[in-house]
Amino acid sequence: MSRSINVVLFDEFTPLDVFGPVEVFSKVPTSFKINFYSENGGTVRGGGNTQVETLPFFALRKSDIFMIPGGWGTRKEINNNRFLEKIAEAATESEYVLTVCTGAALLAKTGLLDGRNATSNKLAFDWVLQQGAKVNWLRAARWVKDGKYYTSSGITAGIDMALGFVEDHFGLFAAKDIAQKMEYTWNREPESDAFGRRAS
Amino acid sequence: MSRSINVVLFDEFTPLDVFGPVEVFSKVPTSFKINFYSENGGTVRGGGNTQVETLPFFALRKSDIFMIPGGWGTRKEINNNRFLEKIAEAATESEYVLTVCTGAALLAKTGLLDGRNATSNKLAFDWVLQQGAKVNWLRAARWVKDGKYYTSSGITAGIDMALGFVEDHFGLFAAKDIAQKMEYTWNREPESDAFGRRAS
Repeated sequence: MSRSINVVLFDEFTPLDVFGPVEVFSKVPTSFKINFYSENGGTVRGGGNTQVETLPFFALRKSDIFMIPGGWGTRKEINNNRFLEKIAEAATESEYVLTVCTGAALLAKTGLLDGRNATSNKLAFDWVLQQGAKVNWLRAARWVKDGKYYTSSGITAGIDMALGFVEDHFGLFAAKDIAQKMEYTWNREPESDAFGRRAS
Repeated sequence: MSRSINVVLFDEFTPLDVFGPVEVFSKVPTSFKINFYSENGGTVRGGGNTQVETLPFFALRKSDIFMIPGGWGTRKEINNNRFLEKIAEAATESEYVLTVCTGAALLAKTGLLDGRNATSNKLAFDWVLQQGAKVNWLRAARWVKDGKYYTSSGITAGIDMALGFVEDHFGLFAAKDIAQKMEYTWNREPESDAFGRRAS
């Protein structure tokens, strides 16, 4: 059975937040179908003039993995209650929820991270903190797993998190094989965060 | 004046080959306009079900940076003479040409890398070699610069190459600032290639 990874996009998302993890999951030894959604469907414009075709968010059903990237667009979407309500619904109905960079702010604003450990982009950390006062934000973490929620630090940390997810669910050998195929030096220790240390 | 980065896409390109470097260039302290092209324009489908909107290749004029990603689609495009002719024309007219992963095979097939140093993906290295018998292929290299041509190894090596390009043209401080913003541990030495060593 093919499993689903559903990624929600919005204008001014950060493409690498999305396509780092997507690259990892496209190499998992299980069939994942990756779909892109946005509030209204259609073409979404991310950073660097990237235009991606999406399905409308209302058509999203249960996901095996639901992923929320970050980007400048989060500053606008954080005030879009209709969008946040749909994120809350999609996250609640998913087996696993992954956020990259400032995507954690959108998830935090729904309240679903309250009382949980989480992390986010280091350069925007103070802004993210304000979106979830009841979240236990960890500054020095490449990524954080708490229950079904995986949150990662900025941009390329999403690749490390996705490989960590693969290790948790498909084993270490699968994760290492994928890192090798991507010629990527995996930062395997979630707590080992050079950027978190610098910022704290 | 805004400078241009023109990326040529094709079906089954590897999204991370594109969006790693694009992320780097979107953060350069100079205005770059990033455009995506494909042989006929329209929607191009990359790995992981990614659909990107593109302009038709015939409309491409001189580029400041012309970039060719890799992916499984190179196996098909390597026999598409019309496409390769346009790649040769676009590369010749560009200030700089960058390839990621098996994108080097497409460029090599045009003959433009003949007599030059270059590198490519390590897992597909033997196939790439066959596309350019007169190229001096370097197996242990994260990326290689030879004149106006920059070629990189597999997938995430494109991020290292793009940061190297930024160092060459905008200075080391700019490159380091961008790596910091991406929370990316830059593999700064082009000859230091853990994956090339393993494969050789």
